[in-house]
Amino acid sequence: MERTYIKDIEPEKEITISGWIERIRNPKSMIFIVLRDITGVVQVTIDKSTQPEITEKLSNVIANSVITLRGVAHLSEYVKMGGIEFIPSDVTIDSVAEALPITKEASLDQRLNYRWIDLRDNAKNLIFRVNTTLEKGLRDYMIETGAIEIHTPKITVQSSEGGSEVFKLDYFGQPAYLTQSPQLYKQMAMASGFDKVFEIGDYFRAESSFTNRHATEFIGFDFEISHITSHHDIMDYLEGALRRALSDVKQKHEKELQEVYNVTIDIPECDFPRIPFDEALSIVEKEYGYKGSKEDFDPESEKYICQYVKEKYNSDFVYITEYPFEARAFYSMKCEDNPRLCKSFDLLWKGIEITSGAQREHRYDVLKAQIAEKGINPEVMNDYLEFFKYGCPTHGGVGLGIARMLAKLLNLPTIKEAVYIFRGPNRITP
Amino acid sequence: MERTYIKDIEPEKEITISGWIERIRNPKSMIFIVLRDITGVVQVTIDKSTQPEITEKLSNVIANSVITLRGVAHLSEYVKMGGIEFIPSDVTIDSVAEALPITKEASLDQRLNYRWIDLRDNAKNLIFRVNTTLEKGLRDYMIETGAIEIHTPKITVQSSEGGSEVFKLDYFGQPAYLTQSPQLYKQMAMASGFDKVFEIGDYFRAESSFTNRHATEFIGFDFEISHITSHHDIMDYLEGALRRALSDVKQKHEKELQEVYNVTIDIPECDFPRIPFDEALSIVEKEYGYKGSKEDFDPESEKYICQYVKEKYNSDFVYITEYPFEARAFYSMKCEDNPRLCKSFDLLWKGIEITSGAQREHRYDVLKAQIAEKGINPEVMNDYLEFFKYGCPTHGGVGLGIARMLAKLLNLPTIKEAVYIFRGPNRITP
Repeated sequence: MERTYIKDIEPEKEITISGWIERIRNPKSMIFIVLRDITGVVQVTIDKSTQPEITEKLSNVIANSVITLRGVAHLSEYVKMGGIEFIPSDVTIDSVAEALPITKEASLDQRLNYRWIDLRDNAKNLIFRVNTTLEKGLRDYMIETGAIEIHTPKITVQSSEGGSEVFKLDYFGQPAYLTQSPQLYKQMAMASGFDKVFEIGDYFRAESSFTNRHATEFIGFDFEISHITSHHDIMDYLEGALRRALSDVKQKHEKELQEVYNVTIDIPECDFPRIPFDEALSIVEKEYGYKGSKEDFDPESEKYICQYVKEKYNSDFVYITEYPFEARAFYSMKCEDNPRLCKSFDLLWKGIEITSGAQREHRYDVLKAQIAEKGINPEVMNDYLEFFKYGCPTHGGVGLGIARMLAKLLNLPTIKEAVYIFRGPNRITP
Repeated sequence: MERTYIKDIEPEKEITISGWIERIRNPKSMIFIVLRDITGVVQVTIDKSTQPEITEKLSNVIANSVITLRGVAHLSEYVKMGGIEFIPSDVTIDSVAEALPITKEASLDQRLNYRWIDLRDNAKNLIFRVNTTLEKGLRDYMIETGAIEIHTPKITVQSSEGGSEVFKLDYFGQPAYLTQSPQLYKQMAMASGFDKVFEIGDYFRAESSFTNRHATEFIGFDFEISHITSHHDIMDYLEGALRRALSDVKQKHEKELQEVYNVTIDIPECDFPRIPFDEALSIVEKEYGYKGSKEDFDPESEKYICQYVKEKYNSDFVYITEYPFEARAFYSMKCEDNPRLCKSFDLLWKGIEITSGAQREHRYDVLKAQIAEKGINPEVMNDYLEFFKYGCPTHGGVGLGIARMLAKLLNLPTIKEAVYIFRGPNRITP
């Protein structure tokens, strides 16, 4: 393969380029093609009188067909596109397209039906190039600080947290379920002495939600670390990972993100502020006259506290810490000085929650009592409880939905645009 | 968290260390502990007469309990373990272990029942540290050469290749299936103009196999690249990725792999040899007097040809190329000069096949004819065929099972040892 990418074209060299016909004009004496590959576009010019063979080959080719060209690029002051035009000496027709079944103006649902056509421009593939950089940044930070990447099983006999919104499948005649999160298995890694682990994996939620933030299948980033002193160690680690990943995205895609999505990436200079739940409620009430729920942080309160932190600290991020135990999962560790609260936190970004985390209760007896307190059937949790019986370090971690973060980063109207192929209650194709 | 890893301990500094009690001896006047964390072991010595409080705290603590110690390490010529002993001034008991339900000598099945205990030594977590490096090497190579990381859906309405060994699930009242491979969706990315994509993801196979090489849930590494001239471009790209990943593993883990698993990593100096299928059969017959199947390459032939290539080229790797179309999937592109054969290959490593790949047929009409030729119900393939109707570049790729490769790399007797948590027809816990 001696193909040259369009962005790497140098004039006056014989090269091979391949790509998609974005536009083709066929006036009397010339053929003009705008050829696109993943790196850019170039104008191709064919003089019909001197190149009858190429002209013949291109005679029934329309836009969206794929071709490979051998030839030479010349500088040309008449060409807008990068100031060069490509003069082919040979052409291969790789694929002749039929007329497209959708236009750029098609509805989201129509576009998702023909997702492979919908994705065919560089604004769309930019989303996935950014996602690649984002995930690489998260992984690199984890691996460079000694974490092990694990792959937890997605088929299990129990649901992660005793919840009911799980997909059921037939596993050689016995019932099994698709996991909603790696929670149980990343905690198991702590009991295995793996010290620090992370996973970017597929999770499944059989929830009949039709919002811009829900999918039945989604990619989660999770980590879990051992020998912590409190949930503040987890917040430190998460902050390090996010700073790294966002810096990498900024460095690699800043210009293109600005041009295509009018997006700038702001990484706060200060540490992400940490505000205890109770204090955050008071601030929202005092500063904005809004009385939120005392049980949990509602979306309105999230918006107000983010506004407050942006004004006061110039940070788009804020940790809300020590939520009421009642609002959190059974495995959250309670605060020693106030057992109404637990060592948990949410990370809010530009008005919405993007991550939840906590120090986990690692003591067998305490954990068992908390399962009872939450009214969960203890039998369902027996296998999980075993992990804590034979020695287990203090630990905690977070889970983060990649698509939600990406959609927020690029200001996309829905996570359906932030995933390669969306799955929802009434969307299972393509 | 101001914890120091055991490998980073410096003498005569006050530090905090955390870990697992590997051994504890409690003679008359002293307590001796071997403490282990993920980076190594250290001896801890407590003088009962001067430290009655610590002695009291440790009185009912047995091996496998987890503790945190504050104190100072001293050089000591009497201590074998790194020549230092740690003298604590304070201890926290993080978790008191019960006596373990299994020993090191337990059967594989028993060890899998208590996988989190089974994994508790550095020879075991080395497997997953190597896996982390291996996957990172593959990903880094892909990303540095411009590939986009995608996450394809795992829930679909059709099986990947018309096969029957799929798990069926209830998707909001309609039947759906878990994917066996990202084949259809990575080809879709080529029709989307993504140019090069890769994925490391979860796949599922409802096959009732009880071998050392099969699992019902497994992690696959897949890539697919566009605008190729032939399957040789794919072999070049795969070779680049494998060389990179194996070099990274060698650089990071060489010493430990040698010590723990008696394994050296040999990366051939020559290009991986490429031998056409027909020629490989002749070589095996001529050199070893073995007549293999003319339809496909059997395990015996694989062993012989690997032996031949090792002797002749000093390579542990060999590509067998241009298999009969009859032995390969419907989407393999046939050779122009001999339509009995197709532009496919297997990569063999130390006697076994670890990867399959091919240039795919990207022309709608030809692909449709090949589906008919293979006797596959064309209706099942209609959605897939749509990908090729509106322009699609030449393309091809490979799929590789990570656990099989890792088991081969470390000479593990079964892939059950090479995956964090194994899933088989009668193994769905923990």
